[in-house]
Amino acid sequence: MARMGSEARAAARVLALAPRAKKDAALLSMADAVERQMPAILAANAQDMEAARAAGTAPALIDRLFLDEKRVAGIVDGIRQVAALPDPVGAVRAEWTRPNGLRFERVATPIGVIGMIYESRPGVTADAGALTLKSGNAVILRGGSESFRTSTTIHAALVEGLVAAGLPAASIAMVPTRDRAAVGEMLTGLGGDVDVIVPRGGKSLIARVQAEARVPVFAHLDANNHIYVHGPCDLDMARTVLMNAKLRRTGVCGAAESLLVDRALAGTHLAPLLTMLLDAGCAVRGDDAASAVDARVTPAVEEDYATEFLDAIIAVKVVDGLAAAMEHIARYGSQHTDAILTDDDAAAERFLREVDSAIVVHNASTQFADGGEFGFGAEIGIATGRMHARGPVGLEQLTTFKYQLRGTGQTRP
Amino acid sequence: MARMGSEARAAARVLALAPRAKKDAALLSMADAVERQMPAILAANAQDMEAARAAGTAPALIDRLFLDEKRVAGIVDGIRQVAALPDPVGAVRAEWTRPNGLRFERVATPIGVIGMIYESRPGVTADAGALTLKSGNAVILRGGSESFRTSTTIHAALVEGLVAAGLPAASIAMVPTRDRAAVGEMLTGLGGDVDVIVPRGGKSLIARVQAEARVPVFAHLDANNHIYVHGPCDLDMARTVLMNAKLRRTGVCGAAESLLVDRALAGTHLAPLLTMLLDAGCAVRGDDAASAVDARVTPAVEEDYATEFLDAIIAVKVVDGLAAAMEHIARYGSQHTDAILTDDDAAAERFLREVDSAIVVHNASTQFADGGEFGFGAEIGIATGRMHARGPVGLEQLTTFKYQLRGTGQTRP
Repeated sequence: MARMGSEARAAARVLALAPRAKKDAALLSMADAVERQMPAILAANAQDMEAARAAGTAPALIDRLFLDEKRVAGIVDGIRQVAALPDPVGAVRAEWTRPNGLRFERVATPIGVIGMIYESRPGVTADAGALTLKSGNAVILRGGSESFRTSTTIHAALVEGLVAAGLPAASIAMVPTRDRAAVGEMLTGLGGDVDVIVPRGGKSLIARVQAEARVPVFAHLDANNHIYVHGPCDLDMARTVLMNAKLRRTGVCGAAESLLVDRALAGTHLAPLLTMLLDAGCAVRGDDAASAVDARVTPAVEEDYATEFLDAIIAVKVVDGLAAAMEHIARYGSQHTDAILTDDDAAAERFLREVDSAIVVHNASTQFADGGEFGFGAEIGIATGRMHARGPVGLEQLTTFKYQLRGTGQTRP
Repeated sequence: MARMGSEARAAARVLALAPRAKKDAALLSMADAVERQMPAILAANAQDMEAARAAGTAPALIDRLFLDEKRVAGIVDGIRQVAALPDPVGAVRAEWTRPNGLRFERVATPIGVIGMIYESRPGVTADAGALTLKSGNAVILRGGSESFRTSTTIHAALVEGLVAAGLPAASIAMVPTRDRAAVGEMLTGLGGDVDVIVPRGGKSLIARVQAEARVPVFAHLDANNHIYVHGPCDLDMARTVLMNAKLRRTGVCGAAESLLVDRALAGTHLAPLLTMLLDAGCAVRGDDAASAVDARVTPAVEEDYATEFLDAIIAVKVVDGLAAAMEHIARYGSQHTDAILTDDDAAAERFLREVDSAIVVHNASTQFADGGEFGFGAEIGIATGRMHARGPVGLEQLTTFKYQLRGTGQTRP
C-alpha cells in the first residue's frame, strides 16, 4: 500500500501539469478500451454475480452489481462525456490588482491523490477514474469485494487507455487485495499520500470512513430531506413538486423523506397531498392531524422523523408555521437538501437563508440535488461536511487553488 | 469542555443569522471595552511578565508577551478595522440559471465553531475574536499559559462588548484552565462542536495539532520560501526584491530562506547579490560557487536548504536553470511562498504554473505573503494545507457556502 501511495503521488505530479488535450485523449482511449473489453467485463461480472448469488446476497445489491451490454455502454458514454467537459485546472477563480500594481490570481489546481472507497456498483470504477483524471488528480480505488472481478477488469481497461495516451499507469490505481486492512490504511492517508477520501456505499461504510479517517472526507451519511409547504401555496405546484421529490426515484439521496405542512394549510392542502401520495402507493406515517385525513395513514413515531427511508414511505407533520418547520428541520435533518413550497417570497427567502443545509430549495423538487442537474456535468458524490466541497462534488470541487502574484519589482513597505 | 462546546454551537447558530449591523456594533463595543479595560489588561500583563521572567522565559517570548499602551491601542484599532470590513456572510460566490429556469446561487455562510489554539501573543485573543465574530463564527480560544492572565482580561472585555450588543457571551469562549488536556479535547472536535482548528505558535504546537487533530486544521508548519533568480534578470530589481524578501523582517513566515541562482547568471548576479546581503549583516551559507564569491560565505550543508531560519541567514545554491530550480523547491520547500525573479515571462509563467505552493510570485517580494497585503483586510494565519483555505486565512476563508435554488415548480425529469 505504501508503494501504491508514493506511485500515486508521483503520478499526481505528472497529471497536475498534463494539458487538457492529453487528459482528454486518455479519457477517449479509456472509453475505447472499456468498449473493446466489454466481453471480458461481462464475463468477470457473470462470475461476480454467481458468487454473490451463492453467498445469498440481497436482490438490491445484486442489481447494483449487475452489468449488461447496455450498462457497459452507459459506462463508456459517461467517460466520453467527462472528456467533453471543460478542464477545471487552471481556471482563474478570482483576480484583482492592489494599489501597488501587484496582480493577484486565485487559480484552480488539482488536489493531488484521491482515495475512493466504494461498494457494489462496478461502474463507479470508471466514473471515479474519469472524474479524477479530468481534474488532474491521481486516484486509489478500493472497490467492494463482491464486485472485485468486474472492477478489476474495468480498471485494466482504464489503465490501457492511460498508457496509450502516455500518462502514468499509476494515475488510476486499484487496491489489489480484498482484505479490509487496505481501507484502514487509506483512511490514515497512507503517510501523506492520500489527500482526501471519497466513500460511496451504504451507511455502515460511510460511518466507518467518517469515524476513522485522518484526512478530509467528501461524503454524506444521511439525506433526511424535508419538503415544507407554507401558506399561501399553489396546490397544483405543491402536488407536482411533492410527487416528484418523493416518488420520482425513492432510492436517491435527493428524495424527500419528510413532509411538513403549515397549520394554516391543514384544511386545504393536507388531504389532497396525502391522498395523492397514498393513491400513488406511498406509505404515509403521520401525526394526529395527518392521521385524521385518511384511514390509510399510520401513526408516526418520533424515529420516523429521523429516518431516511429511501423507499415509498414519508413522515408527515403539521407544524405551526415557518419557525416551527425550521426548528424541526434543524432537529431531524441531515443538512443535505431541504425545500420550501410557497407563494410567500419573504418566507421562502428566510427559509433559504436560515436553514443550514448544503442545498436549500424554493418551489422545486429536492431531487435536483445532483451534480448533473446543477450543471456540473458529472459528480462523484454529494457532501454534507462544511469544508471545501459541500453539496455535489464535481470537477471543480475536486480541485484546490493557489495564488499567483505578478509584479514588476514590488517590495513590502 | 463539552458544555463549552455545546454553548459555542448554540451561539454559532445565533451568529450565523446576525445581521452585519449587529456584528459591527458588537465589534465596536468590544473595541471600546478593551480600551476602557486598558489598566486591568496592563496590570494582568505585568503579572504575566513577572511570572515569565521568574520562569526564565527566553527574551523573544517575553517580547511577544509584552503589552504597553501603544500595543493595546493597536489591538483596539485592529478590532475597529475588522468592523469596517465588508461582511463575508451572504456574499454570492457564483450564480447561474439552468435551461429549465431553475436559478442557482452559491452563497457564503459561516463555518460554525472555530477552535483557536495559540501561544504567547495575548493580542491574538482579540484578533481571533474579532475575525471569527465578523465571519459569523463562534470561537473557542485556548491561549498560552504564559499569557493567561492577560488573555483572560482581554477576553472579559470582548465578552463585555458582545453582551452590550445583545450577542451571546458564548460567541467567544475561552478555555479557563491552564492544563494541556483541553487542547487534546479541542483537537478531537469536542464531539462535533468544533469544525476547524486554527493554531498560532511555535513549530511544536503546530506539529502536535497537525498530528493529533481529528478535524480540519488551517495552518502551516514551515515556510522555507525560495527566491529563484533566472536569466535574463534586471540586477537592480533582483537586488531590491531580494533585500526586502530576506531582510525586511526575518521572523515573519513570508521571509525568504533560500536563494537559488541560475548558472547563466552566476558570473553577473551572484557576487553583487551576495555582497549586498553580507554587507547588510546577513549570514550566507552557500555551495561551492557561492563560497567562491566572498570569503564571508560559509559552506552550506544539506540541512541548510531544508531550514526555515527566521533569522538573518540565507542558504544559497547555483542551479542549472528553471527545471533544476523547481526540482530543488519541490524537494526542500514548504509549499508556502516561492518567487522567481526574471525578465523572461515564459519562464516566469512556467514557474507560476508548475511550482506547487500556496503562493507563487513573479518579480515581487515573498513578504507579500500576508492577508493584509492580499487585500483581505486581516488574516488569522496562513495555511499550506490543500483543503478549503490555502494561503492567507481571512474573513472569506472563515466561511463555507450553501446552494440556494429558486424555482417556479420545476421537477426533475
